[in-house]
Amino acid sequence: MGVPIRDRDLGKRSVARKRQSNRLTTQHIANHGVEGIFGDIARKHDLSVDQISTLVMQKLEADFPTLKFRKRKEIAKSEINARLREVDEFLGQVLYVPQAKIIPDGGIVEVLDDNGKWRVILVTEAKYQGKDIENISQGVLVGTKKDQDIMAAGNAIERSHKNVREIANFMLGEQHFPYVLFLEGSNFLIETIVVTRPDGREVVLEYNSSNLNRIDRLTAANYAMPINHNLCENRVVTSRGQAIMLQAASIYTQGRGGEWDSEDMLAIMLDVAKTSIKMLASDLFDQMTTTGK
Amino acid sequence: MGVPIRDRDLGKRSVARKRQSNRLTTQHIANHGVEGIFGDIARKHDLSVDQISTLVMQKLEADFPTLKFRKRKEIAKSEINARLREVDEFLGQVLYVPQAKIIPDGGIVEVLDDNGKWRVILVTEAKYQGKDIENISQGVLVGTKKDQDIMAAGNAIERSHKNVREIANFMLGEQHFPYVLFLEGSNFLIETIVVTRPDGREVVLEYNSSNLNRIDRLTAANYAMPINHNLCENRVVTSRGQAIMLQAASIYTQGRGGEWDSEDMLAIMLDVAKTSIKMLASDLFDQMTTTGK
Repeated sequence: MGVPIRDRDLGKRSVARKRQSNRLTTQHIANHGVEGIFGDIARKHDLSVDQISTLVMQKLEADFPTLKFRKRKEIAKSEINARLREVDEFLGQVLYVPQAKIIPDGGIVEVLDDNGKWRVILVTEAKYQGKDIENISQGVLVGTKKDQDIMAAGNAIERSHKNVREIANFMLGEQHFPYVLFLEGSNFLIETIVVTRPDGREVVLEYNSSNLNRIDRLTAANYAMPINHNLCENRVVTSRGQAIMLQAASIYTQGRGGEWDSEDMLAIMLDVAKTSIKMLASDLFDQMTTTGK
Repeated sequence: MGVPIRDRDLGKRSVARKRQSNRLTTQHIANHGVEGIFGDIARKHDLSVDQISTLVMQKLEADFPTLKFRKRKEIAKSEINARLREVDEFLGQVLYVPQAKIIPDGGIVEVLDDNGKWRVILVTEAKYQGKDIENISQGVLVGTKKDQDIMAAGNAIERSHKNVREIANFMLGEQHFPYVLFLEGSNFLIETIVVTRPDGREVVLEYNSSNLNRIDRLTAANYAMPINHNLCENRVVTSRGQAIMLQAASIYTQGRGGEWDSEDMLAIMLDVAKTSIKMLASDLFDQMTTTGK
């Protein structure tokens, strides 16, 4: 099985994805297929999250012909600081490496609002961690003595929090947070599964094993709200009379250890991007109502 | 030079710290020595951040004899989720590994409020990354060909964001955020320095080199507000009519590459813990005003 390795230098690689015959994800997420040409493309090809976000933009251009969209690969820290300073002058002061930037795997999709300002509507990352399923199904033993079925899970995934925070800061003045984090690999199971070795022996991967599961290392980014859920619209809670606006990442996991299907990713990303557009509707109103003028 | 290695499995090690003769930090931070026995202890010993936070608690017990303090090593994710649910029932729902917990290097110091509830007043982490100064001063060349003076900086430090977010969530209902992150090592310079090799050749470490500096990887955690600054009191900003409460980590760097001095750390940690107590004063009022009863 070809597995995209994307746990370091994310965004610098374009990873071709292998298609799987059974779409394991479908029982966990709202699997509304994307109709039309863009859905067809996703259905017939194994696409990287970067390629899929381009499809998302093209689909939006078709669905909202009066709006202008763009996609870019990176955001400079200096831009993030500038946005922070717009909210409050004490923020966004510090930058050590002038050219510092962030490069989410799937780029940044934006829409131009009625005031000529680009507004973020989709940021996507895809992370892979844990190749126990591949190892077991190929009969590969791991560990220093090469005598274990399961590799103790690492913690590199915790680095994902950085870009979530960077984009949250860039969007501190917004009421929506369209950050999608796709998880794939044996460290992100949400069901116990059985994998059969070539010699016929079955190995059980317990979804709630502390040795294996690393989803809990990420749930701080969505306030432990549900996984596989569109959390794009910011929730506002109140505590001690203080309103608190929450910016939560929408975390989607391929919970039975399979690979993400391009069409499912497209559907999820479109759903989040459209939620952004809905949240921004007041600032897109003039453009959306000039159709036919 | 003995250098504490703490970039993985943080909090599981107790690191003895070597004292340095010149306290490089003093020009960057408010260096008000801590008077009395606790300051003496810090001055005379090389202490881990865990040992220093114990000193902080003891000093607070001496300064606030009517208040009750405790220090603990860890917070369970289940506790964090329970606190999140107190704020809003939709939060804090998800936990895969029931025993999951976070273990900040310096533990968690709390005070008992008038309602019998423990409130966090100090959480400390200490991270080390980049040993170029040690390598150069010992004449060690690095890189695959062992021909470079400077090692390209890694990105493991980005994992620090996870615990910041976990504690921020635990304290979502509070108006203060007493999270102190101490940085040490050549990846956290805020001044350009020159290091001399044993053969007399001088090597310049540029503080703003993209190859070396990793502070920018952390500033999302303090909204790029100033480094070496007590940010414990939550800032509330307003955007589009929406009040936004910011929880910012107080990031302190040993900006000329030296080691942190125990007494400086004690002073900083005490300053932050006392800010917490001040912020909580309304909820400690009954205990603080019963002195002498």
